[in-house]
Amino acid sequence: MDELIRQIIAFRDERNWGQFHNPKDLAISLNLEASELLELFQWKSSKEAIEQNQDKLQDELADVLYYVLLMCNELDIDPKEALLKKLQKNAEKYPVDRFFGSNKKYNEF
Amino acid sequence: MDELIRQIIAFRDERNWGQFHNPKDLAISLNLEASELLELFQWKSSKEAIEQNQDKLQDELADVLYYVLLMCNELDIDPKEALLKKLQKNAEKYPVDRFFGSNKKYNEF
Amino acid sequence: MDELIRQIIAFRDERNWGQFHNPKDLAISLNLEASELLELFQWKSSKEAIEQNQDKLQDELADVLYYVLLMCNELDIDPKEALLKKLQKNAEKYPVDRFFGSNKKYNEF
Amino acid sequence: MDELIRQIIAFRDERNWGQFHNPKDLAISLNLEASELLELFQWKSSKEAIEQNQDKLQDELADVLYYVLLMCNELDIDPKEALLKKLQKNAEKYPVDRFFGSNKKYNEF
Repeated sequence: MDELIRQIIAFRDERNWGQFHNPKDLAISLNLEASELLELFQWKSSKEAIEQNQDKLQDELADVLYYVLLMCNELDIDPKEALLKKLQKNAEKYPVDRFFGSNKKYNEF
Repeated sequence: MDELIRQIIAFRDERNWGQFHNPKDLAISLNLEASELLELFQWKSSKEAIEQNQDKLQDELADVLYYVLLMCNELDIDPKEALLKKLQKNAEKYPVDRFFGSNKKYNEF
Repeated sequence: MDELIRQIIAFRDERNWGQFHNPKDLAISLNLEASELLELFQWKSSKEAIEQNQDKLQDELADVLYYVLLMCNELDIDPKEALLKKLQKNAEKYPVDRFFGSNKKYNEF
Repeated sequence: MDELIRQIIAFRDERNWGQFHNPKDLAISLNLEASELLELFQWKSSKEAIEQNQDKLQDELADVLYYVLLMCNELDIDPKEALLKKLQKNAEKYPVDRFFGSNKKYNEF
């Protein structure tokens, strides 16, 4: 992960784009990329989307990941630690015995 | 990254949630988490958002990353490879000499 | 509003697109259009976005409105009534004396 | 529509919220509301979502419409005209004879 972040920052700094990368615009950009990912499923089943767009799915997921890592870097967040901590929180929010096989949200019970 | 994916899948499988995780709904969920991240910046400057919500920013970024890795796993995509490949494509789309210090998109030139 | 909805439905039915217009995909589409609207503000101040993209702003707002009205029609919702009812709810959620000049959310107090 | 906009502005001005309503944050807010609408369909079929959440669907559609009309007001856009103009453009982009019964986009042909 560190190596990926290093390469992302190198890509950005070569273009002197750091000046635009305030966290609010990064959060907007992450949303726009998430939306381009979703667009590949518009009017389609999962199956159709995957058959028609495997390469684009890969590219759009990469774009989202790019902004996740860029934001983590700007905000001094370690992505791996953040995820493990959140899994821990979710494990408490969604205990196995109550949520096994359920598509309800913790606040829908 | 592989270790993170392993833990995410373990979390999911303990709850038997794989049955809901078709790629289309995962893409929707990724968008919803991206939106919760953006909400932390609503009506605020980047500076205000960070001062008020550092912990929540970390949690929401973790949630987005969770769905990125889950989708990659479902679609047999290696997230690291996907990102490096996309950086390569972007390097060709945004050559340094034309885009140095520019906030234009490749199709706005 | 009724006249607008009538024209939207005519446009759709001429193309026989009703078959794709299940509410879930309409909600996805509404999000994609909202995202295209937001894209016009990416890396830009409000002022820059407006100066550069007045026409596109109009088009993207129209696209969002298109899906709002289409969904209302599918779900038998009267958009005008829905909005007036929601304003009423919001007036209770955000009483003037507590929220005058405040950018806080009702659950941030 | 004019009457709705008048009521929205009255609601806002009573709370002195106009100061926060720069177009960029309005576009963000519109996206957040669109996302809350989409959330009602997460992990669900259209049918399940409608059965479980008819009232919330109405509220979230109203919230999106609220921001569409507020943005139109800020940007001096007439929502009705904008929509009719966009339908006209779309009619040219998606001619009936080529797009009848097709879920393709104009750039996928």
